[in-house]
Amino acid sequence: MKAYLITIGDEILIGQTVNTNVSFIGEKLTEIDVQVIKSTVIADDHNIIIDEFKEAFSKADVIIVTGGLGPTHDDVTKKCISEFFNSELVMNESILSDVKELFIKRGREITKINEEQALIPKIAKAIRNPNGTAPGIYIEKEGKVFVAMPGVPFEMHYMLEENVIPALSELNSVKVETSKTLNLLTTGIPESFLYQRLGDIDELLNGSRLAFLPNQFGVKMRITSKGKTEEEASNKLLEIEQKIRSLVGRYVYGKNNDSLEEVIAKLLVDRGLKLSVAESCTGGLISNRLTNIPGSSAFFERGLITYSNGAKVEHLNVSEDAIAEFGAVSLQVAQQMAEGIRAVSGTDLGLAVTGIMGPGGGSADKPIGLVYIGVCDNSVVTAKEFKFGDNRLLNKDRTSQAALEMLRRFLLGIPND
Amino acid sequence: MKAYLITIGDEILIGQTVNTNVSFIGEKLTEIDVQVIKSTVIADDHNIIIDEFKEAFSKADVIIVTGGLGPTHDDVTKKCISEFFNSELVMNESILSDVKELFIKRGREITKINEEQALIPKIAKAIRNPNGTAPGIYIEKEGKVFVAMPGVPFEMHYMLEENVIPALSELNSVKVETSKTLNLLTTGIPESFLYQRLGDIDELLNGSRLAFLPNQFGVKMRITSKGKTEEEASNKLLEIEQKIRSLVGRYVYGKNNDSLEEVIAKLLVDRGLKLSVAESCTGGLISNRLTNIPGSSAFFERGLITYSNGAKVEHLNVSEDAIAEFGAVSLQVAQQMAEGIRAVSGTDLGLAVTGIMGPGGGSADKPIGLVYIGVCDNSVVTAKEFKFGDNRLLNKDRTSQAALEMLRRFLLGIPND
Repeated sequence: MKAYLITIGDEILIGQTVNTNVSFIGEKLTEIDVQVIKSTVIADDHNIIIDEFKEAFSKADVIIVTGGLGPTHDDVTKKCISEFFNSELVMNESILSDVKELFIKRGREITKINEEQALIPKIAKAIRNPNGTAPGIYIEKEGKVFVAMPGVPFEMHYMLEENVIPALSELNSVKVETSKTLNLLTTGIPESFLYQRLGDIDELLNGSRLAFLPNQFGVKMRITSKGKTEEEASNKLLEIEQKIRSLVGRYVYGKNNDSLEEVIAKLLVDRGLKLSVAESCTGGLISNRLTNIPGSSAFFERGLITYSNGAKVEHLNVSEDAIAEFGAVSLQVAQQMAEGIRAVSGTDLGLAVTGIMGPGGGSADKPIGLVYIGVCDNSVVTAKEFKFGDNRLLNKDRTSQAALEMLRRFLLGIPND
Repeated sequence: MKAYLITIGDEILIGQTVNTNVSFIGEKLTEIDVQVIKSTVIADDHNIIIDEFKEAFSKADVIIVTGGLGPTHDDVTKKCISEFFNSELVMNESILSDVKELFIKRGREITKINEEQALIPKIAKAIRNPNGTAPGIYIEKEGKVFVAMPGVPFEMHYMLEENVIPALSELNSVKVETSKTLNLLTTGIPESFLYQRLGDIDELLNGSRLAFLPNQFGVKMRITSKGKTEEEASNKLLEIEQKIRSLVGRYVYGKNNDSLEEVIAKLLVDRGLKLSVAESCTGGLISNRLTNIPGSSAFFERGLITYSNGAKVEHLNVSEDAIAEFGAVSLQVAQQMAEGIRAVSGTDLGLAVTGIMGPGGGSADKPIGLVYIGVCDNSVVTAKEFKFGDNRLLNKDRTSQAALEMLRRFLLGIPND
């Protein structure tokens, strides 16, 4: 089955909103072997919407539309669907009672515009939306599936996972060939170096596909293999994975949707270790990433964002002499911060960063992008210098990634480069 | 001028990468009155790419392509451009010397695949890329402009802003009608309530347009007005802005691309105030947002992520009795945390949050989503209860936004609801 995704909304075209919905949908469809062939963004305009529905129907078996189903005047999608399928809008009583219940729960009065959200085209099945007032619309016609959902991400996610994916999965169960994908996640090595270390790429892949996807956190290698059965495709993937790991394994911190913080969390929880973090230049980003993991209190004890020199001395017992002699951004202070946070919190491990993120604060001696990261346990402390770029937010991302990677290598005994 | 954006990359279609590039491009084009009429994502496939180039040329004056210009085998965009324009690839010596210089600066050996990145179609001007090795491609033909840039966001951003936007801006300088857009950013009130408080929307708008864009941080109201001159459009916008502010002004924290943390930063810096933050459930997110602002050390003194009860007692002098009697997630502890962080850091203001983000940790008494936020200065301490949802990451976002909004209202003397 081939899918065509349509996002409706001027706010996406003019760049006011980042379209995270299509990546969520793309990922879920790929998991059930529905191939996304195209994704488009169009304006909230009646004629444009109708034309795009026609185009999508001519190209794909599954059409998934998001956006334009809200309660206000600028939401026109539902009217277009009703017209396109020549099917009048009728009140759906079960959706209406969902909407009423939601308002009771929130202790608010229901209004007419909210009640009207329970109108859906007669030809459609309604998709319930427990997180909001706009239901989704599901239509099967001429062997094709048409789905429309609201554009608010957390509303759409639930509806897609609970209703749309199971329905499509059932329809798509007869397959001739299956394809499987594996992502290997690396950090600390540029794309072109990774590419070269892999040697003869055609020999390595032997008909499978490999894409390199770089960003500030590292390079993702996406491998896709096909086979007559799932097992055949999986075996091809496994063989390539093993070859790649033998060549560049030290840079591979995870697979697929792993995040580096999840990998760290698992390592710490498995070993029963607790971590504390002292951040200067990253301002809480490292702790924020670690506490995004459910159950993080099992391994994350505390984080101190010692932005000022005073806070470094008071909370972490960094010596004033070291700050005076080497500067707050130095290998020595990074080491002392790591040892200090571990001592004050009584954890097994301490992780610390200090650096200059820009745009201000740089000097000839200590340019913007200079970062020191320290990590320690009860017997060893190690610290390392990094040189990143000029952009503050990218530097925060890169520093947080490098710090978590240093910790990963520390825990696994992999030497730093 | 009308623009058509094409993103090339399987990784976007299968949902492995969120397409932030098109929102960046859309925003910059909108600023210079180039209207984005459509944005599409297609696979790294020769025939599909060529077909999409044809479609874009038939619909728009400006075609902007991102992706598929990297050094590895899966990057096919350049070959397609060369074929589409029937223009052979030639070595661009100035780009080649840029690439060589970049490698010298990074202390790495240049390779043949990196050198080949300096090949560009004869018909094109090269766009320099100081942040990477793939140059951009700029072609003017038959009154239309075709641009291709690498998909790595920070590389593309620079090339777009420094080269493409100035060039298009010059070409687009003759206009008949101009349109201007204003975004009013609100938080703490649902979309449908905002809509109702605005009363008769057609009377309010008088021909201008208004869109409501909700997410977990709040609702953005985007107003678009047209006029024969910039001044006429601006005056219409201003009039609507004033009416909206008179109706729902207390919920409006900023305009356009303001972030709530920027608004806070400005308030603090203007008044010469310093802030410290104590976070439990948000795990560093509030401090991270505040330190995303350049020069944040002027107003942000420190942040303590007192995840454990021990850390709350040790660092913030929260009383053990209060934790035992009311629980770590309580109004009393939020107040004590705010007072404690202010006292320990000697800042003018203290901000503190404690709550249950899920998926674990909830109870009948204290369900997931329950949050208490405290804020204080040297004379007043205030705290408030919030009830959010079930999703950990959304709850972190909402809590951080509610905390910053409470601080904003505290600073401006706006009462909480």
